[in-house]
Amino acid sequence: MKSHTKYLWFNTKKRREYINITGEVEEAVRESGIREGMVLVSAMHITAGVYVNDAEPGIIQDIDEMLEQIAPYGKPYRHHQTGEDNGDAHLKSILVHHQVIVPVTNGKLDLGPWQQVYYAEFDGQRRKRVIIKVMGD
Amino acid sequence: MKSHTKYLWFNTKKRREYINITGEVEEAVRESGIREGMVLVSAMHITAGVYVNDAEPGIIQDIDEMLEQIAPYGKPYRHHQTGEDNGDAHLKSILVHHQVIVPVTNGKLDLGPWQQVYYAEFDGQRRKRVIIKVMGD
Amino acid sequence: MKSHTKYLWFNTKKRREYINITGEVEEAVRESGIREGMVLVSAMHITAGVYVNDAEPGIIQDIDEMLEQIAPYGKPYRHHQTGEDNGDAHLKSILVHHQVIVPVTNGKLDLGPWQQVYYAEFDGQRRKRVIIKVMGD
Repeated sequence: MKSHTKYLWFNTKKRREYINITGEVEEAVRESGIREGMVLVSAMHITAGVYVNDAEPGIIQDIDEMLEQIAPYGKPYRHHQTGEDNGDAHLKSILVHHQVIVPVTNGKLDLGPWQQVYYAEFDGQRRKRVIIKVMGD
Repeated sequence: MKSHTKYLWFNTKKRREYINITGEVEEAVRESGIREGMVLVSAMHITAGVYVNDAEPGIIQDIDEMLEQIAPYGKPYRHHQTGEDNGDAHLKSILVHHQVIVPVTNGKLDLGPWQQVYYAEFDGQRRKRVIIKVMGD
Repeated sequence: MKSHTKYLWFNTKKRREYINITGEVEEAVRESGIREGMVLVSAMHITAGVYVNDAEPGIIQDIDEMLEQIAPYGKPYRHHQTGEDNGDAHLKSILVHHQVIVPVTNGKLDLGPWQQVYYAEFDGQRRKRVIIKVMGD
């Protein structure tokens, strides 16, 4: 089994941002030379997520609104007794999940027609990291 | 590392359906000849999910009702400004997650006593696809 | 590809408990001798979850409260017509997801600074199991 690991860094302007990273994942697969296998794309922070969905601005806002409805920013979470103010971001990360696996077939991401890989930042304006690990042959 | 890839096609009669695909996943593992490794089972559309849970009709309805409560069909989602009417299906896909990994041990799915693999269709009545990729030795 | 499989058993005192299993996952990687690859950590029951987040008691309570708000214990779920009383635990398992993949780099879990692996028991006081499968080279 071959493997290739790289890290993406983010430092968003806004507290919450949704960033299409499909191109970076494709590039990691190309660099790896792997033809058959998979790529793990996983947030390395507990206030961010990674998901696969549509590159359509309306649905991105719908996702954000659903998460705000379930776990609103500014609610007095117990976590805030530590001095933090990002309890909502932890909960949003749990709901969205912090990672995806993208299958690799014939050297390419084996995604459906509308599937794009997104980094979901829920507590930005600081340096955060995602790991991309390609594994296969 | 060996790998074996196949695709399942669905075209459900109803808008939302929950289909037990454990048999198909088992068959893919048998075909692969892989004894140790894992199977990725992943929806290739952004309005469907894949999950592991119980083959009990009541809990399937409970799952459906929970998802409808959080992201109801027919709400005026921003995504609908594109002409689509399936914003709820995108949100349900995010909540359920679109993929699972099933471990393979001694050539068999290493699932617990009640674990079954389900395809969750949230915007059916059209051709949709799932990828099954077995990886291991 | 090498692989190493082990099972963790739990029998919690309370109905719902959140248990940090990062040490057990690290130990499995050490035992495997694998330097590059990943570890699948997956609940084998349909009323439990596995997630990656913070080892901070406040946020654990916040997660529990969010799940109780969406899928409260004691609601008359359809699943209860079978005689069971754990419909909430199935739904919580769906929301949290039942598994994570932890990347392994240079023989170590490649986690971010605050990432810890948690077993989330939603219907405890009985013997339950988690599979840990390390795969790589």
